[in-house]
Amino acid sequence: MTESTNRAGMCVATYRVHDDKADFAKKAQSIAVGLTVGSWTDLPELRKAEMEKHLGRVVSVEEHAGDGTPGSRHADIRIAYPDLNFSRDIPALLVTVFGKLSMDGRVKLLDLDVSDGFQSAFAGPKFGIAGVREQLGVHGRPLLMSIFKSVIGHDLRGLEEQFYQQALGGVDLIKDDEILFENDEIGIDRRVAVCMEAARRASQQTGQKLLYAVNLTGPTSRLHDQARRAIAEGANALLFNALAYGYDALHELAADPSVNVPIAAHPAMAGAFYPSPHYGIAAPLLLGKLMRLAGADLVLFPSPYGSVVMPKEENLAITAALLDPSRPMRTSFPVPSAGIHPGLVPLLLRDFGIESVVNAGGGVHGHPGGAAAGGQAFRQAIDAAMAGIPLQQAAQEPGREALRAAVDAWGVREA
Amino acid sequence: MTESTNRAGMCVATYRVHDDKADFAKKAQSIAVGLTVGSWTDLPELRKAEMEKHLGRVVSVEEHAGDGTPGSRHADIRIAYPDLNFSRDIPALLVTVFGKLSMDGRVKLLDLDVSDGFQSAFAGPKFGIAGVREQLGVHGRPLLMSIFKSVIGHDLRGLEEQFYQQALGGVDLIKDDEILFENDEIGIDRRVAVCMEAARRASQQTGQKLLYAVNLTGPTSRLHDQARRAIAEGANALLFNALAYGYDALHELAADPSVNVPIAAHPAMAGAFYPSPHYGIAAPLLLGKLMRLAGADLVLFPSPYGSVVMPKEENLAITAALLDPSRPMRTSFPVPSAGIHPGLVPLLLRDFGIESVVNAGGGVHGHPGGAAAGGQAFRQAIDAAMAGIPLQQAAQEPGREALRAAVDAWGVREA
Repeated sequence: MTESTNRAGMCVATYRVHDDKADFAKKAQSIAVGLTVGSWTDLPELRKAEMEKHLGRVVSVEEHAGDGTPGSRHADIRIAYPDLNFSRDIPALLVTVFGKLSMDGRVKLLDLDVSDGFQSAFAGPKFGIAGVREQLGVHGRPLLMSIFKSVIGHDLRGLEEQFYQQALGGVDLIKDDEILFENDEIGIDRRVAVCMEAARRASQQTGQKLLYAVNLTGPTSRLHDQARRAIAEGANALLFNALAYGYDALHELAADPSVNVPIAAHPAMAGAFYPSPHYGIAAPLLLGKLMRLAGADLVLFPSPYGSVVMPKEENLAITAALLDPSRPMRTSFPVPSAGIHPGLVPLLLRDFGIESVVNAGGGVHGHPGGAAAGGQAFRQAIDAAMAGIPLQQAAQEPGREALRAAVDAWGVREA
Repeated sequence: MTESTNRAGMCVATYRVHDDKADFAKKAQSIAVGLTVGSWTDLPELRKAEMEKHLGRVVSVEEHAGDGTPGSRHADIRIAYPDLNFSRDIPALLVTVFGKLSMDGRVKLLDLDVSDGFQSAFAGPKFGIAGVREQLGVHGRPLLMSIFKSVIGHDLRGLEEQFYQQALGGVDLIKDDEILFENDEIGIDRRVAVCMEAARRASQQTGQKLLYAVNLTGPTSRLHDQARRAIAEGANALLFNALAYGYDALHELAADPSVNVPIAAHPAMAGAFYPSPHYGIAAPLLLGKLMRLAGADLVLFPSPYGSVVMPKEENLAITAALLDPSRPMRTSFPVPSAGIHPGLVPLLLRDFGIESVVNAGGGVHGHPGGAAAGGQAFRQAIDAAMAGIPLQQAAQEPGREALRAAVDAWGVREA
């Protein structure tokens, strides 16, 4: 196919279309016309001249014969959409490029390259990796995040104690469980108040700061007020189930000057979109590019090591999108999550690098010595891995008893 | 499996889980515990007594051996979640029952039965079928909706003329193209002003009312203001890409007393969720139950007749959910869309009944006599079908020239 060269002011979508018989070049043309000006060949010349600036363009069509089995033939089709056709918000972009098309056969949205013009409406993450590091005063190593576990049914005192134990372990961030919602007893402001007090107490022991990403929930119209209430009580980070509210809700939170704390985007519901080879939205776009565009400072996604799995190449593609230096935005911290224990830290470092967050729930709380020892074990594992010391060896050294117990419990997977 | 009988105050989710080897009963237990209290068997008895009210319950597990081919073995698993665990909003419900689980293997969310308590936070459609009929003064036949076509790049005068021609044909509703977004020339208030003026002019010819569902777009936080501006200019209905904003945005619009016009929910992006047999959210829940719960007065979905297809049984299940008389809410109009021409009206009536909307774009605008004749052909087809007259016969009668031309162009599929 001819590559259209003039794509200034256009956003380019890449689709994978599975079809055993389709003329993919024709299909590409029908997308480019059908999702923009509607019809083209029948238009009078004068009207064509007026409408040309609105016409979608086929950028490329790459056919793959597949392995010969039914269902394997497919093509990757790239279509450029003029910015003129839609407003500069993510709902408009997604509805334009994948609203109707999502229902038109076996088609998956793989990628989106937004134009400079579209991009200009998005400031991206307010803090990003550098800003989060600055808040914490931590440089030169991956951050460590711990997850509240099984907090449903706990009272305020229970939360405070669990928070304090996690904080004592020297973690950099603590995140709420994403299924913790508002109720009378542990509403966001009361929760923040007791947990930040626990953070202060722990800080006197550990000498370090920490961020508490409190779960922002409830009606869409009250998210900003909720965030401001939490911040007024001392919240210094937010957790947000972005996909349950739409990217635009995340974007507006990130763009709100009064929401002056980092936002961690949780991937809840992401599995409704990304795993099918035929339908949905690919993980690197869903959890990588679009989350960063919408302004997430940290993005959680399923690690390749745990029970909630995602192929490692998708993990790495998400990470690449969050860190891509060519984008005119701050970078977002990749947070591969689920199934993480201290013995995986060398592998995490190899796969995700220093600019990532080691995030653990069971790997902290399930430590034989308790949550504080769990955090310490992770910090010791990170220090050893950064120094290039094999964990089995590091675990035998004095002062690394917490790591030793973790290694005994979960083993080690060296990189 | 034992059926748990005490499910007052619980919302029940039904999942289809594909797995060649899993112990589905064990999987069900792990969902019921993992997505609620987190752990159970290891808890001290005293703690169990405190936590029991938060514990999820396995309602049923139906195993299907499949056809013996790899990938075909599956189970339908029903889990009841205590309302106590989440707030009464759709993001909280979805994140609880499918947030993390969506990423945990081949699992599709098939259905949700919300408790009376959860339901009580939702008034449902503000108008519903009866209210929309009352607005229009039309009873005893399906409504007729026509779709703006290829409006990208049109100016206000072009829109007005297209609107007028559609209105002249006697349609009951006209909907914006869902990919029509705000720009300086055809912003929502200017668009509403000229189109409602065209509606008034047409009404002098046709003697009938019509609703114009104007596309509500832009930043989430400004949707209500945009809706109020449009209504102030005379808008008498709204179109909303609900899935691009999340169900809660739709719910809040429907619950806003100042948004006192019917809302039509467009299914844009729905194909990212429903078509896979293994992942996502089933169409009857996605476009049926949840759209009605969130308050859509009309719900569009892909018809089983056109190029954008959905299996007919899913269409009928969506329709059943929108009309289900057992729910304590107004019903929502089913609007099967795409590929509709006048010759399909008998089939539409048979499949969807009178309480539905016949919705056409190409079937109106592509009429040999133009859009006004297109609308007339549909109205004549509806009248004939309601009277039980075969369309081929009706099309030969005097005064039904528009129908005759449509039947000549597209043919007839009698029910």
